[in-house]
Amino acid sequence: MKSPAVTDSRRDILRTAARLFQERGYEATSMQDIASALNLSKGALYHHFQSKDEILFEIMNHGLDVFDEEVLDVVRQIPDPVERLRACIARHIGMLLRGRDREITVILHENRTLPSRLRKRINARKRSYIHFLEDTIQAVQSRLGTKNEIHPRAAAFALLGMINWVYQWYRPDGSLSEEKLIRDYTTIFFDGLTANQ
Amino acid sequence: MKSPAVTDSRRDILRTAARLFQERGYEATSMQDIASALNLSKGALYHHFQSKDEILFEIMNHGLDVFDEEVLDVVRQIPDPVERLRACIARHIGMLLRGRDREITVILHENRTLPSRLRKRINARKRSYIHFLEDTIQAVQSRLGTKNEIHPRAAAFALLGMINWVYQWYRPDGSLSEEKLIRDYTTIFFDGLTANQ
Repeated sequence: MKSPAVTDSRRDILRTAARLFQERGYEATSMQDIASALNLSKGALYHHFQSKDEILFEIMNHGLDVFDEEVLDVVRQIPDPVERLRACIARHIGMLLRGRDREITVILHENRTLPSRLRKRINARKRSYIHFLEDTIQAVQSRLGTKNEIHPRAAAFALLGMINWVYQWYRPDGSLSEEKLIRDYTTIFFDGLTANQ
Repeated sequence: MKSPAVTDSRRDILRTAARLFQERGYEATSMQDIASALNLSKGALYHHFQSKDEILFEIMNHGLDVFDEEVLDVVRQIPDPVERLRACIARHIGMLLRGRDREITVILHENRTLPSRLRKRINARKRSYIHFLEDTIQAVQSRLGTKNEIHPRAAAFALLGMINWVYQWYRPDGSLSEEKLIRDYTTIFFDGLTANQ
């Protein structure tokens, strides 16, 4: 079992590495760069992580832990599928815009190269979110008796695409509030652009 | 003026470089790697492009040319905003899935680092597409008299997010046909998941 102190310093390493990967690119960042930014010796860094791949993997894994805690574990408890899906949209966007460890979670939304063994473990966790969305969308469709026969998988990826794109363009200091953004995204997804409400 | 032969060899370089950037990452690919993959001397490669940044810039610029020709220039001619937006969705997805120079256009949909002078030129071209979408969405809203007051900018980015994500998950040999994908995306965007049609 790890002591809290070790856990904290591991998280510091992950945060700093995530920031460097964002700023300089993954390939262009060396273990030496990460150690220097933390005022650590390379040896001390290798004491925590065996390789840069392991750091990237742990960044993604920790990002998925945060996502599970802040989004998935909470919304899974909501029995009504419409409410569940609405809460999921709101919480996922909220996490992207002001969740904890943002420097870490943002990396989840990019395509990064991991060795295949590690990539498979991350992709399996991401897939379970897709399946949750597909199941919830299907439940919404049956509950409301919708007749448009949208493929739940297409809808799940449409929703993920909408949300994952947010951090690339949304400016919290712009004219569109987070609340309005969540409301508009929810309306588009449930009722479409042209629905009269 | 460039001869057609020179233009062809420039495009070969852009295609090969784009493929290498996808496979290995931009930072990890050197000018020497690009020259080797083309059986060119480094000198011959530098005859065409002064730097890797210039190659990435020209890949994006050429990708935007293809996008203009296959999508924007065609749909701009459509006077009815609803038809214009529908055609835009269909053509943009079509380009992503089977457009020419796919190895080049796909890079447009990723966040890549360019020096700020070059990035500004690419971003200005991308912004003109966003503005086109915003204007068209606003025209659709007034024409149909929709009352849900969705912010045209939020809707434009929602649509772009949906579409840009497609190439990351869609498998042409899977159970969802391209035609059905386009139909579902159009329905979700215009009428929402739960609309009864």
